[in-house]
Order: sequence, then C-alpha cells, then structure tokens
Amino acid sequence: MEFGVNFFPVVDPAEKSATEYYDESLRLTKVAEALGFEHVQTVEHYFSAYGGYSPDPVTFLAAVAAQTTRIRVVTGAVIAAFTHPLKLAGKLAMLDHLSHGRLDVGFGRGFLPDEFEAFQVPMDSSKARFAETVEAVRRLWTEEDVVWDGQFHQFGPVSMLPRPYQQPHPPIFVASATSAESCAAAGTAGHHLQVVPSVTSREALQENIAGYRAAYAAAEHPGTPRIQIKYTCYLSEDRSEALVAGAHYEQNYIDKMAEAIASWASTRSDAYPGYEKFIDKVRAFDFKKSLQDNKVLAGTADDVRGQLETIREWFGDDLCVSLQFNPGAMPFSQSLNAIELFGREVMPHFTAVGALQEVR
Amino acid sequence: MEFGVNFFPVVDPAEKSATEYYDESLRLTKVAEALGFEHVQTVEHYFSAYGGYSPDPVTFLAAVAAQTTRIRVVTGAVIAAFTHPLKLAGKLAMLDHLSHGRLDVGFGRGFLPDEFEAFQVPMDSSKARFAETVEAVRRLWTEEDVVWDGQFHQFGPVSMLPRPYQQPHPPIFVASATSAESCAAAGTAGHHLQVVPSVTSREALQENIAGYRAAYAAAEHPGTPRIQIKYTCYLSEDRSEALVAGAHYEQNYIDKMAEAIASWASTRSDAYPGYEKFIDKVRAFDFKKSLQDNKVLAGTADDVRGQLETIREWFGDDLCVSLQFNPGAMPFSQSLNAIELFGREVMPHFTAVGALQEVR
Repeated sequence: MEFGVNFFPVVDPAEKSATEYYDESLRLTKVAEALGFEHVQTVEHYFSAYGGYSPDPVTFLAAVAAQTTRIRVVTGAVIAAFTHPLKLAGKLAMLDHLSHGRLDVGFGRGFLPDEFEAFQVPMDSSKARFAETVEAVRRLWTEEDVVWDGQFHQFGPVSMLPRPYQQPHPPIFVASATSAESCAAAGTAGHHLQVVPSVTSREALQENIAGYRAAYAAAEHPGTPRIQIKYTCYLSEDRSEALVAGAHYEQNYIDKMAEAIASWASTRSDAYPGYEKFIDKVRAFDFKKSLQDNKVLAGTADDVRGQLETIREWFGDDLCVSLQFNPGAMPFSQSLNAIELFGREVMPHFTAVGALQEVR
Repeated sequence: MEFGVNFFPVVDPAEKSATEYYDESLRLTKVAEALGFEHVQTVEHYFSAYGGYSPDPVTFLAAVAAQTTRIRVVTGAVIAAFTHPLKLAGKLAMLDHLSHGRLDVGFGRGFLPDEFEAFQVPMDSSKARFAETVEAVRRLWTEEDVVWDGQFHQFGPVSMLPRPYQQPHPPIFVASATSAESCAAAGTAGHHLQVVPSVTSREALQENIAGYRAAYAAAEHPGTPRIQIKYTCYLSEDRSEALVAGAHYEQNYIDKMAEAIASWASTRSDAYPGYEKFIDKVRAFDFKKSLQDNKVLAGTADDVRGQLETIREWFGDDLCVSLQFNPGAMPFSQSLNAIELFGREVMPHFTAVGALQEVR
C-alpha cells in the first residue's frame, strides 16, 4: 500500500482565511514529501464552505509542484462540465511540465446542483460531458490536428501546446465513481480509479473494485490499474484527543455538506438516481458508527494501523490511500502532529520499504 | 521608472521543450526578484509557436508565486472571452492568496481568429465579452450574493470563494489597448494599463497614454494610474552579439506571428478595424528601423540606457517597463547574462533606489 495526502477544504472563511489554508497545506505537502507520501491531491468546488476554497485545483497544484521535487500532484478531481476541453488540456499539460511528469489527472462529473446552475450546465448532461471531455483532452494531448465534432464542443483542426511531459499522456483517473457500471467502464477504458468509501457500503465498494479490476484485465490494457481511496485521518498519541477531533470535524463536514447539497431537495435528475435521498443519509450520520465501519480513521497509531489492516483485507494490498490530515479549520499544529505520527508509526508498516525494514 | 520581466513564449517545441522553457523562466524569475525587478508577467495564447506554450498564465504564475516572496505576479493577459467569469474570479483569487497579495490582473480581448474559432466565440462579441467579464469578476471578488444577468452569462445569487487577498480586489489592468477610445475608457473606469509599443506609432501611443491619464484624473479615482509598457531586450557586453541576437529573434517573432495571424487574410470583424492589414505591417518588419524607433532594446548597457532615457522622455517617468529577456529559443546563458547585466548596469540608473545611490 501507498499513501497520499488529500486536501478537501471544508472551511468557513470566518474560521480560517484562504491564505492560511493554502499556506498550511503547502507546509503539510513539504512534510508529506519528506515522509515518503506518494501524492497530494485536491478537489474542485465552488461557492460554499464545502470545498469552495478550491475552485481551481490546478492553481494550487502548480504551487505544490514548484515547492516539491518527488511527490506526485493529483487532481481529485477537475470537473469536466465546468472547463472547456482546450483549456483543460492546456493547463494540465503545463502542470505536467512544471512538475516534471508528476501529474495524475482525476476527472469528475460533479454532483452539486448549485454549481451546475451557476455554470448553466444541465445536470442531465454531465455523464455525456464527462465522457466527451476526457476523450477530447486525451486526443488533444496525444494527436496533431485534432478535429473534434462532439455533442457539446466542436473544434479543429488544432494542435494543442504544450503536449504533456508524460508520454503518451498523464495517467487518467475516473473520480468518485459510485456505481458498478461506472467502475467497470473505467476499467474497460483503461483509466485508473478514485473512490470515496464514505458514500458507499463496504460490500458495494468491494464489488465495484472487483468489477473494475476484472474489466481492466479483460480489456488487456498495458500497465497496472491504480486505485486511490480517500479517508480522513485523526491521529494523536492521546486517543481521546483524536476521537474528540474526529467527532467535531466529521460533524462539521456533514453540516457543511448538508448545506451544499440542500438544493437536492428540489432537484431531480435521471443522471443522478437516488441523489435526492442523499440529504437523509447525511442527516443520519453518526461518528461512532462511521468509525466502527472504517469510513473514517481515528485514534492512536495502533488504532489506525489496525483499521488500515482491515481496509487492506477488504479492498486489496495495491491501493493508494489518500488521507486528509487538515479537515475543517483544525489548528495547524494538530494536523502537523498527525501527519508526522502517521509517517513515523503507521506508514512504514504498510509500504514496501517499511515492510522490508520490519522483515530485517 | 520600475522594471518587470515579461515571458511571451515564441518557441517551437522542436527548438526548446516546454519543460526547459518553464524551468528557465522560473530561474530567471528568481534572478529577477534578487535584482529588484518589480514583477513577472505572462500571456495567454494557444496552438501555435506564437505564445502557445502559455495556454493558462495562472498555472505558471502559481509556480512563480510559490518560488518567490516579493516580486509581483501579473497576467499579461488573461483572455476574457475564453474562460467563464466564475472560473476566472476563483482561480485569480487563489493566486492572489498563494502570492500573499502580489497579483496584478491584466485582462485582454484576444485578437487571433484561430483561437476564437476553436472556442466557438464570435470575434465581433469580444469587446462586449471583455467588458462583461471584467465587471462580473470585479463584482464576484467584492460582493456577496452576486446576481449577474449579462449578455453572455447569467448566474446567481452566488458568493464566490475565496474572496481575494488584496482589498477591495487585485489591481485590474486593461491589456494591449491600442485605440485612443479604449485607453480613455480604461482611465475612466479606474483601471490600469498595459501597452505594447511595437504595434503603435510613438505619437499615437503618446496620445493614448495622455488620454488615459487625463481620463483617470477626470474620474477622480483614488490611487495612482499604473502603466506597464512591454519591450524585448537584447543586452550584452559585446554590441554586435546583442544586435545579431536581436535581428535573429525579432525576425523569429515576426515569422511566428505571421503564421498565427495568417487567418486575418480571410477574416473581417467590425470589432477589429484594420486588422486585415496587420499581415502587411508584419511583413514590412525591419529590425534596424525597429531599433532606431526604440520599439526594441538592443546593444550594450550604455546603448540600452540611452534608449530607455528616450522612452522615459516620450512616455513619462512613472512607467513600469516590462522586458522580455528570453525570446524565442535563446540559450539560457544568454538570457541570464542579459538580465544580470540589466540589473547591474541599467536598472539602477532609473529606479528610485538606484537614482538615490547615484546622487550620493
């Protein structure tokens, strides 16, 4: 198993300024690189305390790339519906060069009605837009004189500059696929996968991952399928401190998410079956149950090591676990302590290098 | 007078890779900061060797912000027609925070038919799109619950995150205004100005700048109007080396520009009067005349100091002169030598600090 750091700002400006949030995240990034984490990733959201500090993940990741030399930079995700494929192909290729080939690109469909409404994009079209954008960007990255005659965009012949650093192109991840169909489709297409276990049952996620791996293998793609799985991690030498923080910031996450998805109460889309029930699910949140179900990591290094062993049994050894260490407006010292503790006392137990050291 | 560094990549991928171009530009940026330059800026263009390495200036400038602490980061420019105002407001505000308030935003209309065609935006609409985008972004930066009911975009109520670092918002520059009307309008609106003397006669530029200053003063805006003026600079201890480089890379610039604007031969737009004659102007380019007219800076430190004294007489003492030191695929050592020579032997003659030292 490998580990990454996930930055999903669930921060109200009254609690922490954007300057502080980015500065602290950049500091954690440098610590993460020194500790041997595989990547940092960040999200794309707008307008609300639920991710709104990150309207453009590429901007933040360009700063990350400039302050690091080894760690990978990952969009988790860019939303296909909100940026023109020409723009997306260009800026992502720039980031790939600025990072000397350290870019992984997660593409997402988006799921917040308020965002789609502001951009005047019908939610019903998001699946088709996602498919069109991913394929258009892939062709712009790899071909000359691209002519695109899609449902939403028409252009060409154009030859995009710059072409990416990585050849034939940066790895493509399908972000937050929740259905068996989407996961299998990602495998068939030869894409990698980003999953969020907090929104899926363990059994469903196991089936989705198995289906993904089978589809990837059946299509005989070269290379290895990669899966990033995202958790928030509350870690401290003092168990009760970790659990208090977990209960507090997970509730904050749920509250902010409830506000961000409130418009699902009056939204229906065939492209998002069941999303109108999302609000009830969110309201039924219980931290203790979430912890018991290993949907959140919290406790001492021993506790979290135990949880990750279970997660490894459930989902496989070749995962990359992407961890959020600075949820909400958590004081920086607490995040710093958690990531250092994780790097020292949890990570070596799971990574190849760490496992080797244990054998010796 | 102050001085900045301008990065306008006129580079064919066969001559220099994007990785090399960005890495070298970042190295020059750090040198520029150490030498006391006021800013770095970069452009937005697509598809061709005429600027195509910079499809997203914000991505490059985020890397600049992360590797510097004092120098300002400037878009020169972002093209209003190619990015949604919500996206533009968000990513620019992120950059403003990442740089701790060092952002100046130049907005441009764009002028390449191929770019407008690829984005499916009618060129005739570019003036109205420019005006709408600048105002929408300004409101998104400064107001809560913005409702926008424009000609091209409708949204709201939305409250953008993050709000910018600088209050009320980052300085706004109108980029490459060439007509007296646009320059006066920029002054009336309280915006700052970016001008490119190579495309305007000295007399017209003097009138435009005077008209801009008068309009800014008449509208009684607080603060001081700022003008950035762009030149390419070929500097060497050996005059003939500088002139050979100047003749070579200026011709390269003209050739690449001629390709990029070739479609003006079959394009007419009321919003771009006279642009169809642009190709003839470009073809008539003569380096010696360009040098004589002070449209390009080239020679020894003495020579360039002399040219800048003339430019100061023509256009005023309160300009910020933005200089390109790495045109085309110039070897890095040559660019580095030029910027260091400029910082040591030319700049102190014009800046307040330098002038003070000379008096002492």
